[in-house]
Amino acid sequence: MTEQNPRYSIGVDLGGTNLRAAAIDSTGRMLGKVAGQTQLSAGPDAVVRDMVAAIVKLRSEFGEDRLAGIGIGSPGIIVMETGMIMETPNLPGFEGFPLRDRVNRALGAPVILENDANAAALGEKWAGAGKDVDDLILLTLGTGIGGGIIHRGEIMHGAVGMAGELGHIRVVPHGNPCACGNCGCLEKHASATAVVTMARLMGLGSDLTAEDVCRLAAAGNPRAREVWRVAGQALGAALVSLINIFNPPLVLLSGGMLGAWDYFAPAMLEEVRRYCYVWRNSPARIEKALLGNEAGLYGAARLGLG
Amino acid sequence: MTEQNPRYSIGVDLGGTNLRAAAIDSTGRMLGKVAGQTQLSAGPDAVVRDMVAAIVKLRSEFGEDRLAGIGIGSPGIIVMETGMIMETPNLPGFEGFPLRDRVNRALGAPVILENDANAAALGEKWAGAGKDVDDLILLTLGTGIGGGIIHRGEIMHGAVGMAGELGHIRVVPHGNPCACGNCGCLEKHASATAVVTMARLMGLGSDLTAEDVCRLAAAGNPRAREVWRVAGQALGAALVSLINIFNPPLVLLSGGMLGAWDYFAPAMLEEVRRYCYVWRNSPARIEKALLGNEAGLYGAARLGLG
Repeated sequence: MTEQNPRYSIGVDLGGTNLRAAAIDSTGRMLGKVAGQTQLSAGPDAVVRDMVAAIVKLRSEFGEDRLAGIGIGSPGIIVMETGMIMETPNLPGFEGFPLRDRVNRALGAPVILENDANAAALGEKWAGAGKDVDDLILLTLGTGIGGGIIHRGEIMHGAVGMAGELGHIRVVPHGNPCACGNCGCLEKHASATAVVTMARLMGLGSDLTAEDVCRLAAAGNPRAREVWRVAGQALGAALVSLINIFNPPLVLLSGGMLGAWDYFAPAMLEEVRRYCYVWRNSPARIEKALLGNEAGLYGAARLGLG
Repeated sequence: MTEQNPRYSIGVDLGGTNLRAAAIDSTGRMLGKVAGQTQLSAGPDAVVRDMVAAIVKLRSEFGEDRLAGIGIGSPGIIVMETGMIMETPNLPGFEGFPLRDRVNRALGAPVILENDANAAALGEKWAGAGKDVDDLILLTLGTGIGGGIIHRGEIMHGAVGMAGELGHIRVVPHGNPCACGNCGCLEKHASATAVVTMARLMGLGSDLTAEDVCRLAAAGNPRAREVWRVAGQALGAALVSLINIFNPPLVLLSGGMLGAWDYFAPAMLEEVRRYCYVWRNSPARIEKALLGNEAGLYGAARLGLG
């Protein structure tokens, strides 16, 4: 194995909308990528077929001999030992489906299944904003809010693999009910979905996207500004607890909501500055992640490298 | 080194009221103990003198040759690298005091300084209720609420050593203001102090202890029962978030409040059962710690064993 011919791995990012795979070598260089839609309505077997086809395409292109392994990032809470997804509201039909073993059998190659936000956290640690630290916490701000915790360079899994459900930290007791069964979860108060709901309740419009609410804030609309401020405050409340719990050197935020950073981050950071005991004594950096929606691909590929 | 002559270590538990030290061998057997008062009013130098005297007494009794090291558990948030306490409301005069190095210099032996709840968590992992797991979370329920996180058999420290401030998880936004600067911290809603405050506000009496409130609950007093129920619910709210964050196999509760377990635990466990996403899929055991107020001594001694 020489510098010119390092091993590589294939990372897969299985989302509710997009299915992507990338070949990434051991130095963190992306060799190639395949992107398509997730054919959820065709059922998990069809999705596995598409996934395997994408992997086979990359494997043919970059060689079977240098392929170290395959990692898959998927939404939902996962049992690492069985490679199965227990609950995943965004992938109907995949609960209890033996995803890892199906892909493994189709390819005859080792496969690791991991939660998508965990994979993104590892990706940022490996090739993004977390290169210089051993520990970090990542929050993915999108339709929901996912989380990943890196400790000593590795994903923290807990007992079976379900650690890092940071979107389900309770920030508002008796707050909005969440599909998880809790009330007042962070993701019900600070995700893009929560922003859209708040904007609708504030009379900003009934068919807005979070990007629209961001544009309204940029144009100076005070109610749009208030929506982002409230979301930022909820994020800050979760960060106060997380920093008191972990004393992390670095907290990263990623996902589609980052475009509204200027509108939610001030309230978020103010909350941490005012209320966080550990932060005052050991201030964590709180920053934007760097790899955008490719963090999960990098992290999944990193898992495949072993 | 034979079974009959294992190495031992001296663990010190420095509290706001009591100063205790114990010699514990590498098999977890307590060889001897020294207990006294913490002479806080005499200043940190006097406390160090008493501490050193207790250690020297144990060292003389059990031999210098077999002594592996010395661990000290102390309240407050600690910088591991410098061995200094940054903030410690319960030990006036110790903030910024070079506790570890003073003891080290007086003894000419290696000393490790650790947060007391972290030490208790390690003690329970080593010799108590956590022997059979690699990961656990401990909450110490007393005047305040401390926390310790054990991951892969070791204390989780975070960036500088301040991880595990679980008493400062926010459970009630805009709740009781806490000395830490936050509002609605767990320890302002579920510690023995919080129980006494609630009991007073409910008209149960102006000079009660938490034990008194426990006795009233045992005698069937409905307002005392309600105080414990509310405290249990706040504990449950923190556990919902902690279990969603860590997916731990085991959560332990320790401290003076355990005597009221029958009055606070039902509401706490109900909160977890109803609202915790990860728990429903991977139920953590939630149990009483076993070592009582000696957990910190065991943990501090374990640190000294290296």
